[in-house]
Amino acid sequence: MSLIVQKYGGSSVGNPERIRRVAERVIATQRGGDRVVVVVSAMSGVTDSLINLAREVSASPTERELDVLLATGEQTTIALLAMAINSGGARAVSLTGAQAGIVTDGVHTKARIANITPTEMQRFLNDGQIVIVAGFQGQTMEGQITTLGRGGSDLTAIAIASALDADLCQIYTDVDGVFTCDPRLVPSARKLDELSYEEMLEMASSGSKVMQSRSVEFAKKFGVPFEVRSSFHHLPGTRVIEETMSMENVVIRGLSVERNQAKVTIDGVPDRPGAAAAIFGALERANIVIDVIVQNVSRTGATDISFTLNKDDLDHARRTLEPVVKEIGARALLAKSGSAKLSVVGIGMRSHSGVAAKLFACLGAAGINIEMISTSEIKIAVIIDEADIARAANVAHDAFGLASGPMLAS
Amino acid sequence: MSLIVQKYGGSSVGNPERIRRVAERVIATQRGGDRVVVVVSAMSGVTDSLINLAREVSASPTERELDVLLATGEQTTIALLAMAINSGGARAVSLTGAQAGIVTDGVHTKARIANITPTEMQRFLNDGQIVIVAGFQGQTMEGQITTLGRGGSDLTAIAIASALDADLCQIYTDVDGVFTCDPRLVPSARKLDELSYEEMLEMASSGSKVMQSRSVEFAKKFGVPFEVRSSFHHLPGTRVIEETMSMENVVIRGLSVERNQAKVTIDGVPDRPGAAAAIFGALERANIVIDVIVQNVSRTGATDISFTLNKDDLDHARRTLEPVVKEIGARALLAKSGSAKLSVVGIGMRSHSGVAAKLFACLGAAGINIEMISTSEIKIAVIIDEADIARAANVAHDAFGLASGPMLAS
Repeated sequence: MSLIVQKYGGSSVGNPERIRRVAERVIATQRGGDRVVVVVSAMSGVTDSLINLAREVSASPTERELDVLLATGEQTTIALLAMAINSGGARAVSLTGAQAGIVTDGVHTKARIANITPTEMQRFLNDGQIVIVAGFQGQTMEGQITTLGRGGSDLTAIAIASALDADLCQIYTDVDGVFTCDPRLVPSARKLDELSYEEMLEMASSGSKVMQSRSVEFAKKFGVPFEVRSSFHHLPGTRVIEETMSMENVVIRGLSVERNQAKVTIDGVPDRPGAAAAIFGALERANIVIDVIVQNVSRTGATDISFTLNKDDLDHARRTLEPVVKEIGARALLAKSGSAKLSVVGIGMRSHSGVAAKLFACLGAAGINIEMISTSEIKIAVIIDEADIARAANVAHDAFGLASGPMLAS
Repeated sequence: MSLIVQKYGGSSVGNPERIRRVAERVIATQRGGDRVVVVVSAMSGVTDSLINLAREVSASPTERELDVLLATGEQTTIALLAMAINSGGARAVSLTGAQAGIVTDGVHTKARIANITPTEMQRFLNDGQIVIVAGFQGQTMEGQITTLGRGGSDLTAIAIASALDADLCQIYTDVDGVFTCDPRLVPSARKLDELSYEEMLEMASSGSKVMQSRSVEFAKKFGVPFEVRSSFHHLPGTRVIEETMSMENVVIRGLSVERNQAKVTIDGVPDRPGAAAAIFGALERANIVIDVIVQNVSRTGATDISFTLNKDDLDHARRTLEPVVKEIGARALLAKSGSAKLSVVGIGMRSHSGVAAKLFACLGAAGINIEMISTSEIKIAVIIDEADIARAANVAHDAFGLASGPMLAS
């Protein structure tokens, strides 16, 4: 008898009809002979309505109280799902984050899980019940309600799977799994059967928004294998697992695309200690998230520093940096919107050269100009004009033969 | 510095605008130099919406899960009110029933408060904060969420006032206080400044639906004085307090009216042990609530038993009793809908005769027929035709001089 943790997102439990369908799936899982813990999000739209209510009573709602408010969203879903399961002929019991023993730090609206005491979950599981846990929430050691921030329900599921030493953790969502590339962009994109945590992290942080990076990082840290799959049919999804020997043979796992990028170049930065710190320190204090940073070797006592960011932050970044540019004595601040990032991801590229050459060659042959290049151990990312992104993704997808199956090391 | 517990019902916190107004009132109370604990209900309509959601996922929702679901209603209000107070310049913190230390028995959907451990409330009060507590809810010793059933938020307020030894408990509602009679029925009805717990109980259980009897009984048992008043203006309401010597001089405090009554008479019940038990046992097993019971002295070896009940239960009662009537060998079952109950209430009538005579005389003079009579120590109730109830209430209100002030013992 296995122990399975299933997580259902907001659209999977978006209305009573869908909740009843999830109940059927959960009951079928238990009837298949397994013990089941289910983690659920708030019904889609509920969290936004609660935030709007909060804004109607306060221009800047207290974060502690926002957590008390938002926690009602998942609490509503757990009760409804438990009722639906009970009335479908199985036995279920709901637990809030606090009741499930999920203890977090005290950073309201973006708390971190400190530990899980699964006594209560185990008690109900041992009694043969299906346990329904509210995702996204926990409580501090002192009993204050907290929420985990974006992607929090996935994190709850993976942390519970770890605490209970579950055999399987299934993340049910509204997509079929992780694809070699966004199918809306690359029609020949193929669903992946499996990939490693590291590959998933590069795919996620590069814009394949199936899951937040923090949940994948948690799974990696504690070695929790999980599967991303659709709650709207019964086909298998994508398994995300520890890297295996055979994975090394897959040079490229997939492509990841991020649109709406902007690029800033600071021209003629004097080559002395503290110049880069002044630039990125100012951006950090302004809460501007930046992505790729490129600095070339200095040849003339001055260098150029370029970085990318979300285009919505561009004006703010420009206003933040103008005084800094003067202060450090740089020549000019150049800003450009309308960029996109294409990343090629695969564990196998660590031990196989030629990936960069092949990527640059296929883009060059298609007449696509590369504005910036950035690499990590298992990723090569290029910044290109946003107008070229669909074409670039398709030529790279073809060049690496991703439609027909994984590209194996020759 | 006094400690004040204020309770606001669902209509007082029915929308963000009203929540902001409650916040202003609470802040003003604290600025007046008092420490404040606020108990709130769910926003009006929310509990019904949640019950409808439950019905959409299950024909008979599990009671444990119904409690988990319904508890979100008050949890939403406490967070919103705390935010509104914080953004109004004072400091507030919200607590669920569980966090406030409210421990109940395990009877889901109608739990009883077992005890309150006010440590957490006191900690925040000592820190100078306004404490906002979710009414209607608690948790069992084992940490299961429970709700207290109808009138539960009033009960929470009174129990907290008792546990904290508060100086004052104010029940804010959408009426101005307790009246000598329902003002919609008797235009000359007058708001009472004060009345005793016993009088309030007779007024409440006789149909003046300002508060549920159980909250008044709890207040009486633990000697918690409270005030019923309106949240829509700043006029004083009605104080409900321990009986005082001077109250004895007030013969009649007020009238209470209950419409929609039905009357059942079982004719020719053999005068032997067990006959009454068979009748009322059957009604109890069918969950039919009955009110006044009258049995006359037996003269012929058989007697008549009459009782009243809500007219909506009449058909069910008839179906329940028909086999019982045969079984015990009674003659007939007579049922009549369209009755009403008028009660005259006052502590002073204990020591003053003549109240019954005066009531029957004024009704007789108005040509109103009395169908049944029932008395308690501080109440005389008559069952009359529902068509006569407004006229009966007005003539009795006049006869006892209730419009101009309390009727004092001569």
